[in-house]
Amino acid sequence: MNWETFSGRYKARDGINCQWRIARRPVGNVRPEDFEWTEEPIPVPKDGEVLLETMYLGLAPVMRMYMMGTDRTGDEHQRVGDVIRGRGVARVIESKNPDLPVGEIVQGAIGWQTYRVSSMTPAEKFFRVTTPDLPYSLAAGALGMNGLSAFAGFFICGEPKRGDVTVISGAAGGVGTMVVQMARIAGSRTIVGIAGGAEKCRFIKDLGCDEAIDYKSESVPQRLKELCPEGIDFYFDNVGGEILTACLENLAMNARIVLCGSISEYTRETPFGLTNYTRLRAVEGKMAGFFVYNHLHRWEEFTGQMADWIRAGKIKPVQDIVEGFESMPAALSRLFEGKNVGVQCCRVRPEPVRRKLFD
Amino acid sequence: MNWETFSGRYKARDGINCQWRIARRPVGNVRPEDFEWTEEPIPVPKDGEVLLETMYLGLAPVMRMYMMGTDRTGDEHQRVGDVIRGRGVARVIESKNPDLPVGEIVQGAIGWQTYRVSSMTPAEKFFRVTTPDLPYSLAAGALGMNGLSAFAGFFICGEPKRGDVTVISGAAGGVGTMVVQMARIAGSRTIVGIAGGAEKCRFIKDLGCDEAIDYKSESVPQRLKELCPEGIDFYFDNVGGEILTACLENLAMNARIVLCGSISEYTRETPFGLTNYTRLRAVEGKMAGFFVYNHLHRWEEFTGQMADWIRAGKIKPVQDIVEGFESMPAALSRLFEGKNVGVQCCRVRPEPVRRKLFD
Repeated sequence: MNWETFSGRYKARDGINCQWRIARRPVGNVRPEDFEWTEEPIPVPKDGEVLLETMYLGLAPVMRMYMMGTDRTGDEHQRVGDVIRGRGVARVIESKNPDLPVGEIVQGAIGWQTYRVSSMTPAEKFFRVTTPDLPYSLAAGALGMNGLSAFAGFFICGEPKRGDVTVISGAAGGVGTMVVQMARIAGSRTIVGIAGGAEKCRFIKDLGCDEAIDYKSESVPQRLKELCPEGIDFYFDNVGGEILTACLENLAMNARIVLCGSISEYTRETPFGLTNYTRLRAVEGKMAGFFVYNHLHRWEEFTGQMADWIRAGKIKPVQDIVEGFESMPAALSRLFEGKNVGVQCCRVRPEPVRRKLFD
Repeated sequence: MNWETFSGRYKARDGINCQWRIARRPVGNVRPEDFEWTEEPIPVPKDGEVLLETMYLGLAPVMRMYMMGTDRTGDEHQRVGDVIRGRGVARVIESKNPDLPVGEIVQGAIGWQTYRVSSMTPAEKFFRVTTPDLPYSLAAGALGMNGLSAFAGFFICGEPKRGDVTVISGAAGGVGTMVVQMARIAGSRTIVGIAGGAEKCRFIKDLGCDEAIDYKSESVPQRLKELCPEGIDFYFDNVGGEILTACLENLAMNARIVLCGSISEYTRETPFGLTNYTRLRAVEGKMAGFFVYNHLHRWEEFTGQMADWIRAGKIKPVQDIVEGFESMPAALSRLFEGKNVGVQCCRVRPEPVRRKLFD
């Protein structure tokens, strides 16, 4: 069954809480059979709680791991039958919490459902959306965990330096499109983006890459040698696997590697083994990992800075929005097929009319 | 042919320059057939040069890579027929260099031979031995490149913190025995050494390890969990392979890994692949490599500090000395068999009588 047929079977509607649940553990990329659609009455908020109506849901590779019960987020693993975890943007439509009146926009761990009751405690990692002048969809992207991933990974974990030769894989993806622009802000001398296909390569060059490598049609090791003759100073890794291997072979002295994601590895049958990690030795290199939720304490600094960059045009948020809650499973699949450009998200309901619309 | 029979065939003697050369590229651990013994007239120093008489030669795993022509030191690869590269301690026995009178002791890239002429230029990476109160053999160990590896790896690359739970593999080896004692100096809370065999484990506990894991008879992953219930803060890696994998599985937040050596990987037929390097992500971990020759500019700081520690008894140099230049190939083999305790070196000639002997 293809995704279109599958999505077409269902229709979310107001007045009922539609949900996507884990039907079975995925093997390889997700398939329609891995998802179950359920409908429940809208939950009723208790004192202190609010009822949220989902506007946008973001998609991220970690969600496949939630479905497999293999994520390393530290939260309890999900079981077959659970509503799939995920973050998004929602509007308060009923409030028993004086701090959050009806109409307020929030972002947080809504899950794959069209309504949710929340007590808005810190454990639920909800945040109020404080940028009414910007599209709310951004809270499921540049002003959400995707943005914080790029910000914390690049600026905090990565220690970028002016004049760096910076290479970014998954450069056309949700985090990659932001890191490309952050490298420009940080004063990289040369920015090389790696992406799949000529269209994506053109796109990332428009976005700020000096050079682009199409890993589907070019030899990445060969092109890295040509484009970075003095070696790579900074590599932001969104993909792992052979591309990480190729970058390790071509490092400059004191190179830094940031491990953000390894999407090329997630759906393999046999785990990928990195054979040349010892290349860090000859160049005094560092490979550092980070996890976005370890950086939540910098939320206000991050959102303030990111919103300023967006307003100043220094960061153009790139979003790949699918329409309709029915399309969530198909949207997740797109990530592993490398189809998305920018942050993959799903519009569950249109944005409400606001004082001033983003132009 | 065993090593004893092989070594017994040859006899170094004064008045002739005896050499060990590459007879063929080693496959797996080195074998007698990989080495060729040659004899040449003693070379004659020109103006500005000195003639050196070899006293000690150090052994290091990189020498097998020299023999294979696969080292990443940046120097030209060695060919079959070349005198094998290596560092050691020598005495000036003839001088056409007014700065280096006869009797002076130096350390440097002598190669596997009993005499050498040197211009003592920086390119040859020779240093004068400035610690006449300490055994000269130490210049082929704690006060040589082994010591600088431990010092640069642990203190410069590794950023140790007081209170760290520190794990050291190859803890009974040349670098490991020093790092164990450096971890004590740096104020580690718990020091866990990993070594092969009960005897080595006892030895490293005497040297300063709070706990020891015998990788030959115990499950390293299991023991690490038991001994480091809050995770590893600092892992000094001398071995790579499965032990690095096990440490990655058991990291504490903000853990640091220093990549010094990967002796468990060098002689494998299929290269080792590190499947869980992404564990660095959840803990904001860092894996950093270093190469000892990148730190030569700190030579004086290092030798001054190390000599002070040795004199104060804070670092007890551990040396595993084989007798006779004939035994060099066998001594190299010991490294890959895990037989050495401390720095493996070879006494080519006895130390000269000095003003004050080390007690």
